[in-house]
Amino acid sequence: MPDPILLPLDLPELDADLSGGFLRRTVHPSGLRVLTERMPGSRSATVGFWVGIGSRDEQAEQHDAPGSLGSTHFLEHLLFKGTPTRDAMQIATSFDRIGAENNALTAKEYTCYYAKVRDADLDGAVRVLADMVTNSVIDPGEFENEREVILEELAMAADDLADVANERFFETVLGEHPLGRPIGGSTETIRGARRDDVMSHYLAQYDPSTLVVTAAGAVDHDRLVELVLAGLDAAAALEGGERWGTGKDRFPVRRPQGEAGADPAGADPADGTPADPVQGSQADAAAELRLVSRESEQLNLMIGTRGLRSGDPRRFAFGLMNAVLGGGMSSRLFQEIREKRGLAYTAYSFGASYSDAGAFGMYAGTAPEKAAEVIELANAELQKVAESGVTEEEHERVLGQISGSSALALEDSDTRMGRLARAELGSGELYTLDASLERFAAVTPEDIRSVAAELAAAPRSVVAVGDVSRSTLA
Amino acid sequence: MPDPILLPLDLPELDADLSGGFLRRTVHPSGLRVLTERMPGSRSATVGFWVGIGSRDEQAEQHDAPGSLGSTHFLEHLLFKGTPTRDAMQIATSFDRIGAENNALTAKEYTCYYAKVRDADLDGAVRVLADMVTNSVIDPGEFENEREVILEELAMAADDLADVANERFFETVLGEHPLGRPIGGSTETIRGARRDDVMSHYLAQYDPSTLVVTAAGAVDHDRLVELVLAGLDAAAALEGGERWGTGKDRFPVRRPQGEAGADPAGADPADGTPADPVQGSQADAAAELRLVSRESEQLNLMIGTRGLRSGDPRRFAFGLMNAVLGGGMSSRLFQEIREKRGLAYTAYSFGASYSDAGAFGMYAGTAPEKAAEVIELANAELQKVAESGVTEEEHERVLGQISGSSALALEDSDTRMGRLARAELGSGELYTLDASLERFAAVTPEDIRSVAAELAAAPRSVVAVGDVSRSTLA
Repeated sequence: MPDPILLPLDLPELDADLSGGFLRRTVHPSGLRVLTERMPGSRSATVGFWVGIGSRDEQAEQHDAPGSLGSTHFLEHLLFKGTPTRDAMQIATSFDRIGAENNALTAKEYTCYYAKVRDADLDGAVRVLADMVTNSVIDPGEFENEREVILEELAMAADDLADVANERFFETVLGEHPLGRPIGGSTETIRGARRDDVMSHYLAQYDPSTLVVTAAGAVDHDRLVELVLAGLDAAAALEGGERWGTGKDRFPVRRPQGEAGADPAGADPADGTPADPVQGSQADAAAELRLVSRESEQLNLMIGTRGLRSGDPRRFAFGLMNAVLGGGMSSRLFQEIREKRGLAYTAYSFGASYSDAGAFGMYAGTAPEKAAEVIELANAELQKVAESGVTEEEHERVLGQISGSSALALEDSDTRMGRLARAELGSGELYTLDASLERFAAVTPEDIRSVAAELAAAPRSVVAVGDVSRSTLA
Repeated sequence: MPDPILLPLDLPELDADLSGGFLRRTVHPSGLRVLTERMPGSRSATVGFWVGIGSRDEQAEQHDAPGSLGSTHFLEHLLFKGTPTRDAMQIATSFDRIGAENNALTAKEYTCYYAKVRDADLDGAVRVLADMVTNSVIDPGEFENEREVILEELAMAADDLADVANERFFETVLGEHPLGRPIGGSTETIRGARRDDVMSHYLAQYDPSTLVVTAAGAVDHDRLVELVLAGLDAAAALEGGERWGTGKDRFPVRRPQGEAGADPAGADPADGTPADPVQGSQADAAAELRLVSRESEQLNLMIGTRGLRSGDPRRFAFGLMNAVLGGGMSSRLFQEIREKRGLAYTAYSFGASYSDAGAFGMYAGTAPEKAAEVIELANAELQKVAESGVTEEEHERVLGQISGSSALALEDSDTRMGRLARAELGSGELYTLDASLERFAAVTPEDIRSVAAELAAAPRSVVAVGDVSRSTLA
């Protein structure tokens, strides 16, 4: 079996050719990291500026201090609002006029600003993104305006009951863990946010050591490095300060596992051995039933527990288990809940993994009257895999499923761009498709059963959002 | 200016090479049409089986007869439920085991069953799709089960207030026109649907003359034609009847404009001259205010009127007008409603075009208290374009926007697959990217102002879904 490509995160070589010129990684002494994957024949490229700061890095205790809840997402919005040389309209125009697919997203462990463009438009997009990320002025007027926009975004999310169920699920399963909090903060924290605090958060967290730039498609690695460094130097000149200076040696920041977001159970993954996915929840959270009453036709159900952290070696076994349980039309949940009984239009299972915690869940939207039956069915299916494992046919089928869907996904430069960044900011391991498929192929039936058994043995919570009064859950 | 590629719909050549071997079209004497676009270097393909039958072809008067409301969408679900040689689980498994991206969709004027797969998996996917589309058994037990699934799908849609606003908008703007009806039917029509009526709908509407098969990516045209014909012949042998027989000469069905879905205003596009986009609504529908009260944080607002039908030559001018008005971050609606005033997270405009009618609308999700202000702003922006047109900078920007976004979209085989079918089933014209961009470039500033003026002069309706009691609209 060929070795997977391991990104040498602890050996910051200045420049590493990881795959015959197609895959390259540069670590600048300032801490800046640039990774590219060239896709021969591609006439477009996707570039992302990733900052290894997410909602988990916020301070739960202070609503009106740097890094208050929701301020990372607030900051993401503000970076579109202007620099000393580009106002908000100029930033918007520079992407629109080339028909770019561009946006930004704030996640629990990172923030990303990206654009997909034609090959000839790449340099221009990189210049604008570099300016946005390094030179935001955070104008007080724009700040107040954007506060209203974010309040509307939160209102929109509050009207999406599946979205509400998802947020309540992470709160319920991860408890007091910083990863359990909603990414956008709340109406209260956004109303209370202060411009100077968000500015301080920006100044404290955004610098070359937290910045990872990745690109895939029609991209020239050396040219990208040159453009990004020029952007940082320009920012350093503008600020007259130290933040973006590339002359200073820094070490790239990788999240020290177990630090700010320490697992409440005290599991320590720093020694390389993964914590039991279950222990955290057993120590800290019992099975909980959380009902959120809203006017609705359907009840949005989420059933689950703590799962695997991103570096967990059992993630390949989990991926296969999850595909059998709830990963497609032929999966057990889809068959039992929808195809055989017509209880739901949507039914699936999922895993969400972070550096030091994770969640595993099953989702279905169903008539409130049928919620108890759906929960029973979902639990029974998990239990069956835990006890009897998967059939040979299922095992073979989901290996084929992962092989095919991975190949299709990797045709898109945006998928490859994101994969580079998540590997760099996350596990530190980047697999070629073949190496990844070999890891999946090496999983035994007992590995699959065993990971299901561990999840099934953990206290399992239920979140239901909708017209709970029509259900028998209350 | 090079001519656009015009599909010779009225001259059913047996085989036409439309672009140096890359783009080919076969019209079989049975009426079956197959169109492919080969994308060099591609290692995957998307194939779609399109049937030129949509919700508009249903009978509004009969809830319990063939073609009752919602039966086209019901039928789409049922085609996944089994044939004489494959049961529902085998169909699901055949796609899942290759990691296909597959699904189906019912629209107002067509139904589509598609799969995106690796090149080596294409033949297998075509065989399964051909079997599904031609040989559905519509088992009575599966029918009853699927009725429940569709009721859950309708319940899910009813909980999505933007979705509700969208359906009410088409009803309001298109009035009694069959295109104004919701695609999925209603709880009542689905509860009342009978298996034998849906079967009759299937037998009456699905045959080679309504079937269009399109594929893009790593596809061999002759091989695809061969596989589809083999599928039809197998179906003809199975049924022992006439429906799928390819020996019989038929003429491919193209929707006779103005027939079943005749414009109530009596506009007759059969002579090739487009009806005024405005006349239909003026004759039949006044500006209407439609309030739907639901528990919500946001009010979902849609403001609009009748628009252009798909073959309207002004569609290029409309495309530019729509991009300036509400097509991106730099568009007027986004700037005025979100960026300057923070009244919404989402604000855009859109057009929807069908063979003999269309709609034009503006959308925003806003706090109910601010709804009146948002409506006023949206109307004012449309009026400004109608009176003063667009600036030179805007004109140039949206040309670049369409050029860039089209090039990016056409990198995907699914986009190209869908484009072939919509051209064949819709306008009958397929443009190369260059020819399409030249049409956009030929639009004058006065063309843009003029199409906005026509839309602005029409009676404009408002649909609001959410907590209307907090608004001043009632």
